[in-house]
Amino acid sequence: MNQDYIQADPWSIIEEGFDREQVKSSESLFSIGNGAMGQRANFEEQYSGETFQGSYIAGVYYPDKTRVGWWKNGYPEYFAKVLNAPNWIGVDIIINDEALDLNTCKKVEHFRRELHMKEGWYKRSFVATLPNDVEVAVEVVRFLSLDLDETGAIQYNVQLLNSDAEVVVVPYLDGGIKNMDSNWADKFWNITDIASYGNRAFVASHTMKTDFAVCTFMQGELYVDGDTLDMEPAVEETGTSVRHAYKVDLSKDETLTLVKFGGYTVDRNHPKDKLQEAANKVLEKASALGFDDLLQKQKDAWAKIWEMSDINIEGDVKAQQGIRFNIFQLNQTYLGKDSRLNIGPKGFTGEKYGGSTYWDTEAYCLPFYMATKNQEVAWNLLQYRYNHLQKAIENAEKLGFSNGAALYPMVTMNGEECHNEWEITFEEIHRNGAIAFAIYNYHRFTGDYDYIPKMGLEVLIGIARFWHQRVNFSEEKQQYVMLGVTGPNEYENNVNNNWYTNYLAKWCIDYTIEQISKVRESYPKDHERIMAKTKLAPAEIEDWAKVSGNMYFPYSEKHQVFLQQDGFLDKRMVKVQDLDRSERPINQKWSWDRILRSPYIKQADVLQGFYFFEDHFSQEELERHFDFYEPFTVHESSLSPCVHSIQAAKLGRMEQAYTFYLRTSRLDLDDYNKEVEEGLHITSMAGTWMSIVEGFGGMRVLDGTLHFEPRIPKQWKSYSFKVNFRHQIITVTVSADGCSFGITGKGPLTIQVHGKSVQLIPGKTVQA
Amino acid sequence: MNQDYIQADPWSIIEEGFDREQVKSSESLFSIGNGAMGQRANFEEQYSGETFQGSYIAGVYYPDKTRVGWWKNGYPEYFAKVLNAPNWIGVDIIINDEALDLNTCKKVEHFRRELHMKEGWYKRSFVATLPNDVEVAVEVVRFLSLDLDETGAIQYNVQLLNSDAEVVVVPYLDGGIKNMDSNWADKFWNITDIASYGNRAFVASHTMKTDFAVCTFMQGELYVDGDTLDMEPAVEETGTSVRHAYKVDLSKDETLTLVKFGGYTVDRNHPKDKLQEAANKVLEKASALGFDDLLQKQKDAWAKIWEMSDINIEGDVKAQQGIRFNIFQLNQTYLGKDSRLNIGPKGFTGEKYGGSTYWDTEAYCLPFYMATKNQEVAWNLLQYRYNHLQKAIENAEKLGFSNGAALYPMVTMNGEECHNEWEITFEEIHRNGAIAFAIYNYHRFTGDYDYIPKMGLEVLIGIARFWHQRVNFSEEKQQYVMLGVTGPNEYENNVNNNWYTNYLAKWCIDYTIEQISKVRESYPKDHERIMAKTKLAPAEIEDWAKVSGNMYFPYSEKHQVFLQQDGFLDKRMVKVQDLDRSERPINQKWSWDRILRSPYIKQADVLQGFYFFEDHFSQEELERHFDFYEPFTVHESSLSPCVHSIQAAKLGRMEQAYTFYLRTSRLDLDDYNKEVEEGLHITSMAGTWMSIVEGFGGMRVLDGTLHFEPRIPKQWKSYSFKVNFRHQIITVTVSADGCSFGITGKGPLTIQVHGKSVQLIPGKTVQA
Repeated sequence: MNQDYIQADPWSIIEEGFDREQVKSSESLFSIGNGAMGQRANFEEQYSGETFQGSYIAGVYYPDKTRVGWWKNGYPEYFAKVLNAPNWIGVDIIINDEALDLNTCKKVEHFRRELHMKEGWYKRSFVATLPNDVEVAVEVVRFLSLDLDETGAIQYNVQLLNSDAEVVVVPYLDGGIKNMDSNWADKFWNITDIASYGNRAFVASHTMKTDFAVCTFMQGELYVDGDTLDMEPAVEETGTSVRHAYKVDLSKDETLTLVKFGGYTVDRNHPKDKLQEAANKVLEKASALGFDDLLQKQKDAWAKIWEMSDINIEGDVKAQQGIRFNIFQLNQTYLGKDSRLNIGPKGFTGEKYGGSTYWDTEAYCLPFYMATKNQEVAWNLLQYRYNHLQKAIENAEKLGFSNGAALYPMVTMNGEECHNEWEITFEEIHRNGAIAFAIYNYHRFTGDYDYIPKMGLEVLIGIARFWHQRVNFSEEKQQYVMLGVTGPNEYENNVNNNWYTNYLAKWCIDYTIEQISKVRESYPKDHERIMAKTKLAPAEIEDWAKVSGNMYFPYSEKHQVFLQQDGFLDKRMVKVQDLDRSERPINQKWSWDRILRSPYIKQADVLQGFYFFEDHFSQEELERHFDFYEPFTVHESSLSPCVHSIQAAKLGRMEQAYTFYLRTSRLDLDDYNKEVEEGLHITSMAGTWMSIVEGFGGMRVLDGTLHFEPRIPKQWKSYSFKVNFRHQIITVTVSADGCSFGITGKGPLTIQVHGKSVQLIPGKTVQA
Repeated sequence: MNQDYIQADPWSIIEEGFDREQVKSSESLFSIGNGAMGQRANFEEQYSGETFQGSYIAGVYYPDKTRVGWWKNGYPEYFAKVLNAPNWIGVDIIINDEALDLNTCKKVEHFRRELHMKEGWYKRSFVATLPNDVEVAVEVVRFLSLDLDETGAIQYNVQLLNSDAEVVVVPYLDGGIKNMDSNWADKFWNITDIASYGNRAFVASHTMKTDFAVCTFMQGELYVDGDTLDMEPAVEETGTSVRHAYKVDLSKDETLTLVKFGGYTVDRNHPKDKLQEAANKVLEKASALGFDDLLQKQKDAWAKIWEMSDINIEGDVKAQQGIRFNIFQLNQTYLGKDSRLNIGPKGFTGEKYGGSTYWDTEAYCLPFYMATKNQEVAWNLLQYRYNHLQKAIENAEKLGFSNGAALYPMVTMNGEECHNEWEITFEEIHRNGAIAFAIYNYHRFTGDYDYIPKMGLEVLIGIARFWHQRVNFSEEKQQYVMLGVTGPNEYENNVNNNWYTNYLAKWCIDYTIEQISKVRESYPKDHERIMAKTKLAPAEIEDWAKVSGNMYFPYSEKHQVFLQQDGFLDKRMVKVQDLDRSERPINQKWSWDRILRSPYIKQADVLQGFYFFEDHFSQEELERHFDFYEPFTVHESSLSPCVHSIQAAKLGRMEQAYTFYLRTSRLDLDDYNKEVEEGLHITSMAGTWMSIVEGFGGMRVLDGTLHFEPRIPKQWKSYSFKVNFRHQIITVTVSADGCSFGITGKGPLTIQVHGKSVQLIPGKTVQA
């Protein structure tokens, strides 16, 4: 944890001073993205020190052959890798024949990075003395355009401080890149063509195996002290790269500026043979606007995003910075325009975990996008899974299921499972439940039932079929049991009767049966179509009901709690607080053997069920389960603190809720797990948002009505947030003295605050 | 299964007819070995068809970097690979500029292989028509000398059948070889020197990482129709190979013979810088004897082995061939001369599984070697584990154990764990118990207590300490439980309270406490030394006793059986016989997910405990457990049928016992699992021997007395075997009419036959 490395600031992430040891971490923290592409904060100019290069394109991946110790039947053949794409940001600076390289400079002073979250741009500046004693001041501004989401823009300024010099500026494209994370050192890209026309260049390439075609492009414009420099570059080509060298004799104090536009056109959006043409069109648009106007549009676009999604915290700048960083990164990763894309656990900031879609999307991200975007965004997230239904059915078939049972993958890019540990892939099946829950949650929040007859019911039927086949009747217990699963607590594998999974399974079946009835009554044509397509007969539904009506749930009479799984109480029940500090984090200090046998819980498991289904349990039951499980929880998953923060808040334990909140909101900024250099924890950032809105704000939707139970940590003066509830924007402001509500939109809305009805009227602020 | 491919013969393995599809399988089945090295039955001459080249040197391995999907703390860094060594057998034959290659010949007739088990040699012969229409008759005899165990000998005869021709015979050495089984395509060997003097050549090499130095050597002698041909070869060297070309103008009907001696000298037996010198000495000895005399010595040496270890079956040639093949292969793999070597699961016949030592050695191989060799051989097998005690302690420390607790590895070459699946490496800990049981078994059979005070007690203390730390007290059950293990049934992983493991653990602690007392009383100096070394205090022993006195064993009152593990009865209990045939073998037809959740048992688990500790249970209890578990057992491990055969025989179910016997004895010959091309199942071959001696013969040692309960399958006329019991050789002959016993050695011995005392006197045969 490094509390002082990033400066506290309400709207910006700021680093001052050049520290080689922090370069990779900063490359993650200062990452930029626009939903369609992303870029780690790699230096444009040459850097010979330790770095982790990453340029990523949404939806472009590589199926890396699975790496396992011992093959097991049913394993997926590949692990989808987030793919480092050809480099478009490169700008080499050569001064009097010496390359500018911060790793070799005699001095680097006034080094500063700023990620301006409010306006969506990243700036880096420094003064450096090269080995040849030339002193330069450099300032670089970079952003990935939200308006023209196939392009980024770089304004690279070099000023000579102590002498005249010959400066060669070399914007380039490079397809000869490597992935940090590769199983077999495969070649991921094939470069098929390199072209250069005037100040533009293009690298045509496609990914191996998946054959995604990508055109990487750039355009350079030079200025001296703001005046256009009209010159043709010298072109250098290798088999994988193209470089444009501009040689300028620059005087002391003069500033040479390169404006570089660059990015990717991909065959998801254009015909394969029109990618260069599309790239030219993007460049036309970008250069017609110019750097400044494109940046202004960027600021306007981010202003719109913040207008809806900002959370303002008064009195606690670190908490403020944390939540904005989380909201900013989520918006950089996914904007919900395209139902073929999803939210990778590291977004566009790293490669670990592979794939783009985990249950994180449904369990954590959906609530954020539902409340801060228009409804189509959440619909697109749901539709993503509908699009993958057939693959989920095939995935289940590979494991021996039949009759249309669907098992959604643990990790996926295109609907196919691509993870490679049996204890996760085959057993962490609760993900199926989260996907069903998201359908319920969407309807609960938006009031829009349309998704269910159109798409959702088919998904639900596949999932219900899976659960029905996955359980078996135990003669011993005379109940249905579910053997061999891994719950959300991945510090246990292959357990029997994980309460959370059993509970979800039962709920999925009941909910599906209920939706079949509703669709039959209200959407008879859809019902007919779906029954014909799924060949679902009443007898099968009756069989499902037998299972859901007689499911086994492990329970301790002594502790009056549901047990995480069979045999949980056989463990050596030493609480986390009684472990020596030196033993933690256990995932770094202990062998896997020891972890598995321990009672320690990586992230909410039974309590995840209490979060999803809180209205099924009393406050007392929640308290009993929280008091039983939290003391054994090590929160070594980024998804853990947020759920606990929400529940602690609900139990009125604000100090504990606040501690959990800080941990979730500043996980990456303070690098709690000493791993931020690998990339950011994007999906858990939505959990941070939930901690405030659902935790402190106590927002719930019950029977179509918005409820709030606002509380405030004593460290804060006030906080406020907005939610888009059924096409109306509700503003909530909470301070120690009370809370107030505003609304925009068509008309009055009645909400519940601390159990009392409050009517909101557009244009009025109501105290409650 | 291919019942007709290998001809039934009591003493030989014979294949007739050339079938490209069978080449790799035959390469396994016709493998030769001499305990120090081994050779798959690869052709000497060029072969462009599908082949699996394998030349192996005992104790020479490569630590291949572990390949896992997701690293877990405590994983071993490498997987020790059995290493394909430089090829010494190669002999290219070029006739009129055309290479002899059975894959490209116009015709191959009279192709025949014979592995002569009685005399320990392998012969291959054929008549082939080359693409250039030259017709040749070839006969090759090959063996690995038991007397000079660093060398093999090849007699390669070529006769021209239809014309004169120029024949170039090229014996060669080749270090440019590959391994079938490599995780990362690493280079395994570094060739450091190549030398050629007259008709001898040498390739000096060492293994990468492990730095085992090996000198591969050869010598060639040529004859025409038996007359020495005195000529110098043309020498061809590449960076990794050396070839000696002898060009001979051969007339029609003349036979050209190459006698090639070759093999390896290794730095386990010689100083690193004297390997070529040692190789020269071996060649001196071999050529002084010549091919024929060395072969005669081979026959004599095998006669001695058979004299002691043969099992003769009358009336069932397939059963006879099966058991001899098993005994032959065991003797080819391990002869017990060197306590640094052990018995790999595939011996010198393939590479799968890696490592050389599994619990197979103690549980299956030890009884065979105890009864068919001098006592030192078994001692050496025990000492191997004593030599590795420190590594076993370190292995346990890596997993979080302390205070000298020892966990022997699941797979090893040098004492370090080298397997790479957590569910095996960390959890299949019953292997520790088998190692302790072997100490008990050695004392029981040989009557020699010396090993325990000298070495065994330290091993037992390390193992007892492990079990003591591995269990935990369950507040819920008020007993000690063992969580997160994998039993012998590897179709279950990470189970709680596997009965077999719990029972072994308890037994190990009790046995260790007993031996500490015995050593204290009878070997006080050893006791003092061991207590000082292990720092074992009486209080610690008392703690152990608390565990062993209050261990939890899952039990079903309803079925009156111990349960394989907690929750076993929650499974869907469909018997194997009620599974559709098309579903089996389940390890090929089912996903791992489905297997884990099923009740199907890969190999004896509870019944393995009943085998080890049969005198702890009544015949009724055995019957009840056999009837409960066998119907769920799929016997998909080569180690399964033998234990079941022994128990079926004990229960008097001879038909079932015979079926299991055939399955174990002809597993490879009949290729039950369609995988013999990967190599033979060496360690389970000892189980075949046990099936006859302990199963049909009913041999046991109780209170120092040899007991027999002979039975005979109705398919057999008679069978006989010998056992070396405490330096006397007992011969047992069993027929339907009764049984008879003989003895050689110092004096009379009283044994028990069907519960009655029988006195054996040297020189007399006693009917009983």
